[in-house]
Amino acid sequence: MIYLDPLRLKKAIFSTLIDLDVVEEAAIHVAESLVTTSLRGVDSHGVNLFPHYVRAVKAGRIKARPSMALIQTSHSTMKLDADHTFGHYAGSVAMAEAVKLAQQTGIGAVSVSNSTHFGAAAYFALQATSHDCIGFAFTNADALVKAHGAKEAFFGTNPICFAAPLEHEEAFCLDMATSLVSWNKILNFRREGGKMPHDWAFDVEGRIVDDPTLAVSLNPAGSYKGFGLGMMVDILCALLSESPVSKDILPMYNSPIEERRRISHFFFALSIRHFTNPDTFRVSLQSLVDRIRDMQPSDPTIPVMVAGDPEKRAYAIRLESGIPIEETKFDELITVNGAFANVICV
Amino acid sequence: MIYLDPLRLKKAIFSTLIDLDVVEEAAIHVAESLVTTSLRGVDSHGVNLFPHYVRAVKAGRIKARPSMALIQTSHSTMKLDADHTFGHYAGSVAMAEAVKLAQQTGIGAVSVSNSTHFGAAAYFALQATSHDCIGFAFTNADALVKAHGAKEAFFGTNPICFAAPLEHEEAFCLDMATSLVSWNKILNFRREGGKMPHDWAFDVEGRIVDDPTLAVSLNPAGSYKGFGLGMMVDILCALLSESPVSKDILPMYNSPIEERRRISHFFFALSIRHFTNPDTFRVSLQSLVDRIRDMQPSDPTIPVMVAGDPEKRAYAIRLESGIPIEETKFDELITVNGAFANVICV
Repeated sequence: MIYLDPLRLKKAIFSTLIDLDVVEEAAIHVAESLVTTSLRGVDSHGVNLFPHYVRAVKAGRIKARPSMALIQTSHSTMKLDADHTFGHYAGSVAMAEAVKLAQQTGIGAVSVSNSTHFGAAAYFALQATSHDCIGFAFTNADALVKAHGAKEAFFGTNPICFAAPLEHEEAFCLDMATSLVSWNKILNFRREGGKMPHDWAFDVEGRIVDDPTLAVSLNPAGSYKGFGLGMMVDILCALLSESPVSKDILPMYNSPIEERRRISHFFFALSIRHFTNPDTFRVSLQSLVDRIRDMQPSDPTIPVMVAGDPEKRAYAIRLESGIPIEETKFDELITVNGAFANVICV
Repeated sequence: MIYLDPLRLKKAIFSTLIDLDVVEEAAIHVAESLVTTSLRGVDSHGVNLFPHYVRAVKAGRIKARPSMALIQTSHSTMKLDADHTFGHYAGSVAMAEAVKLAQQTGIGAVSVSNSTHFGAAAYFALQATSHDCIGFAFTNADALVKAHGAKEAFFGTNPICFAAPLEHEEAFCLDMATSLVSWNKILNFRREGGKMPHDWAFDVEGRIVDDPTLAVSLNPAGSYKGFGLGMMVDILCALLSESPVSKDILPMYNSPIEERRRISHFFFALSIRHFTNPDTFRVSLQSLVDRIRDMQPSDPTIPVMVAGDPEKRAYAIRLESGIPIEETKFDELITVNGAFANVICV
């Protein structure tokens, strides 16, 4: 394992994108999102994705210099045509607008069409919380989660992300795929061998499998409930923005990299002060979080946690030790730009 | 099993409430919600609850003549103090206001404090769909779902409900508790004997159990994901309205029936026309629903369904055959009001 210095890593990502003629605002958000997400321990959505993003920019799937179009459709709603820029950038623009609307009218919602992979949803929902707002972020993705009762996948892992500010620490943040586990966990089993837990994935006939090499679709979280939530996410993202639903989106990998994916997102911001005093809210939520953490654990060796606690622990550790990256993944970064050799922790 | 005529049942519920001096608007919504919910096959939230509600009105937990207070807090948000009226009434007032706000400003949100059990969340979310809106309804409830990693329950079954209009049939509606199964399913196993599936419930030590008599808390849907969603619901309902969280709410049964429960709710309405043409939206959603239903089933004897399909099937059947009710439950109705003898199907 190689350890990378977060600050130098962020600068190297930024410079690489600028050299590819990517607009500065997009480069800032991609660098910030990838490094923060890796610091938070979410390796599937952090810096490991960067070499793929670079290929997508070079091939034209992601536009380096987009002409985004933002339209206000009512006092509290907007639509953003992202013109195939980085989802990290499009999502940040959308959430910033949702927050501005919420501050004026109590609540703001922005739908985003013609976007690309936006990385971790938490990156956007957390932005709302520093403006005394509750943030929601949703995105669709290519089909990977088995439709309940069907043989095949229909919706993507279509995440739901919800964040709300706390008094003494970074905001509470639930960022969850609507599948029970991520596809990465299946891939880990393929690499390392062994049988998967009994309820993770299905084969081509829609039968539950424990052999990772036979898995082709994921189990929704809570069976038909996760399937329903994935559909809710696609209705908010794709149908409100007249975009393709999960089943009609090209896979991120194993598809012609020059082709556009037309991913869609949806963002809400809810202004806390229009319901209660934001100070009171933060104190109440902190007390709620603390009460739960203080509960008696069912396994005395594992403390009770709330959503986002594992990410906070990873963040504290990685800020000290650096961001761990596998050697093969690091080699990919070096291939993208030799300058990544200078971001290793010394 | 006894079968009840929906129309006469609705009238009998309404008259019983009027005789108890319940305000007419509340009586209308309780009757409509209970009968519709029973028609939709959701017996846990339908007419079976009526005798309990009557006891709660007589004891003062539910106020017959409330003084509700509605405050507009911004262009798109309102707060409703429900003054302990029926949740069915408070929720309908709140959703009607959310829809009006959404029609003016694109989106509306209303938080509700000092309420009581509101029955099925679908009753409210579906109301939004007849006004070209997407509806969301949330409520908290007393602690019943085990906190992930803890021994005990913290959040209630805290449902998430989402509804959106379809072209050729009643709206799409996902109405799901954030627990994997409902407490009623545990009670059914207690009555009928046998072992429960391995992942439904926990004992007092927070250990998973298959013996229904040992179960004291429910498994969240999708493990820590359902736990996180339950917390999201309590943040929206309780924290925004300065109300007690699930853990601090009296249980519905086995608590002094004269005591107030201070349940809180949260409602959103999203105006579709501020994002896309509502006709286009309904056609697109219909096509999405039809595509999923047309998928190849993993079990050829069970067709693929979307959320709400089982309720639609039950509705069609029960509209013909009447609402089935167990004899003991029917006897409770008769004890409440002898006039229920006249609602049996002939």
